[in-house]
Amino acid sequence: MLISDLGEQGILRLIQPYCLPNTIGDDGAILHPPAGCELVVTTDILVDGLHFSDRTTTPFDVGWRSVAANLSDLAAMGATPLGITVGLSLPQNLPVVWLEQLYVGMQACLERYGTGIVGGDLTRSSVTTVAITALGAVDRNKIIARSTAQIDDAIVVTGYHGDSHAGLQLLLKSELNKFTDADDLRAHRQRLITAHQHPQPRLDILPILDDLRLSSDRIFPISGMDSSDGLADAIVQICRSSQVGAIISRSSLPISPALSTVFPDTAQSSTLYGGEDFELVLCLPKSIALELVDRIGTGAAIVGRITRSTDVLLVDDRRQQPTIQLDLQSGFKHF
Amino acid sequence: MLISDLGEQGILRLIQPYCLPNTIGDDGAILHPPAGCELVVTTDILVDGLHFSDRTTTPFDVGWRSVAANLSDLAAMGATPLGITVGLSLPQNLPVVWLEQLYVGMQACLERYGTGIVGGDLTRSSVTTVAITALGAVDRNKIIARSTAQIDDAIVVTGYHGDSHAGLQLLLKSELNKFTDADDLRAHRQRLITAHQHPQPRLDILPILDDLRLSSDRIFPISGMDSSDGLADAIVQICRSSQVGAIISRSSLPISPALSTVFPDTAQSSTLYGGEDFELVLCLPKSIALELVDRIGTGAAIVGRITRSTDVLLVDDRRQQPTIQLDLQSGFKHF
Repeated sequence: MLISDLGEQGILRLIQPYCLPNTIGDDGAILHPPAGCELVVTTDILVDGLHFSDRTTTPFDVGWRSVAANLSDLAAMGATPLGITVGLSLPQNLPVVWLEQLYVGMQACLERYGTGIVGGDLTRSSVTTVAITALGAVDRNKIIARSTAQIDDAIVVTGYHGDSHAGLQLLLKSELNKFTDADDLRAHRQRLITAHQHPQPRLDILPILDDLRLSSDRIFPISGMDSSDGLADAIVQICRSSQVGAIISRSSLPISPALSTVFPDTAQSSTLYGGEDFELVLCLPKSIALELVDRIGTGAAIVGRITRSTDVLLVDDRRQQPTIQLDLQSGFKHF
Repeated sequence: MLISDLGEQGILRLIQPYCLPNTIGDDGAILHPPAGCELVVTTDILVDGLHFSDRTTTPFDVGWRSVAANLSDLAAMGATPLGITVGLSLPQNLPVVWLEQLYVGMQACLERYGTGIVGGDLTRSSVTTVAITALGAVDRNKIIARSTAQIDDAIVVTGYHGDSHAGLQLLLKSELNKFTDADDLRAHRQRLITAHQHPQPRLDILPILDDLRLSSDRIFPISGMDSSDGLADAIVQICRSSQVGAIISRSSLPISPALSTVFPDTAQSSTLYGGEDFELVLCLPKSIALELVDRIGTGAAIVGRITRSTDVLLVDDRRQQPTIQLDLQSGFKHF
């Protein structure tokens, strides 16, 4: 059955069970932000053929990923989700089951993080497009901004990088994913694919930051953003916004066992430029950074420190590779 | 010059001046909702070839209309705008001047209503798509919902209906717009075209409702929605949500002099089913409705009343046309 068979009212009836009660049915949805909080709003668009495709992404995964990308932006601001709106553009020949699985995937990710769909819009188009806006609330004193990194801050990444990009390569080039009987290699490959299909927005980091703030005897800003456009991009963006620089150590880059096993030659460039890992890159005082990395555990690492000079340098402590400048040109290009 | 020549950073530089200061540059935008207010969120998508086209809509008008549609949804909830996010999907061969004029048009409408762009996302696609999410604030006691219409409420429309649809017909069928030397006919045609190109969201109604609430000695709910999908659709939607019916009088339908002059034969059906007039349809006690219509002036009218029976009937007081049932099937279909 195609969505053109269902008609607009039929589509709305299909979607309604996936929306939070009492939010649909008016021109807008009503939300109740907690008293005294700032509101955070973020938007992310996924387009068929560019951000996902039937070759690499099931409709469930499109739903999961589109929600995860937006919740990751909220986490990157220090904000807890209040809800999302979903703007869908759909071709008339789209199978109804695709649409249904999209919502199942969105809901799976939303439920995991305790939030839901509060509104949206629906239109036809020649290309499937999922435009999500996520709303969150953050205490004024806990906003994570890109522009407040301090000289000598440690730069923490909350998990492995490059896995999502490597997983996409495995999905795109099926020949990479054949010819092994080794269980551990198969498991590593599957881990990379899962990293691509079901990224985990790091909202779990926020209560840890709350604890560290509470137990510290001083007040410090936490600067940062998520690494959706790559780890190198995130570090450069933070440095530019804060008018500082950074020294990043090659040996401290958080490369997973899966990535270094499956793609030993390209692991480092995937880690720096792969993108879509949806981890957080945070700048904070070193003593607190050490505690943070300890609390997060596997994958988390201090990768470098903020410097007064505005260069962003990637150095090799073992002096086997030359020092290079990181910039915004090496990452993923939209246009 | 095409946007592919500009590159992503170039596009962002072009867009930045049209955004409110201090909102761009992080993963999300920060907004400050007034204390004690509810938050209203609404989303609207416009797709090239479906909601606009180069034949009928300049990029300025696409910008104006996309903002107006969203602000109208806020007005329909009783909410004052806090800001909008803009999610753009653009073909790489789009002229830069198109993108620039889109933002000039959005800003013109936003400035008129005292609000601005706070964030967004940008991606390429094969079809130009503008997905806007608008955020507003409303006092808990002033929320306008579809579901609270009361039996015997008067049904007020805040202005003429059908003009936008008629204007679109003039733009689509250029032969309709020829062969007249009569100044007044030309002026009427231009009025219809302007109604289509630059609809005015009725945020100006909200302070009038505040005044009427203050000066009234009783508390009453105001039910309603906007008429973006047509006047008949709005009345039927309100009745269904409120589990009531309505009797609408043909002779009271708000038909503009321009519409009845240019399209005398189809004026009534345009008024009922045309859509995109972005007026408000409000249900409230008759004595207050009379004051409201008086305060709004030209175009505003009481078109009928809410009934216990759930039928929505269009009656002819002069008994020249049969009574008909209005339903959701006659309006604009997306799928």
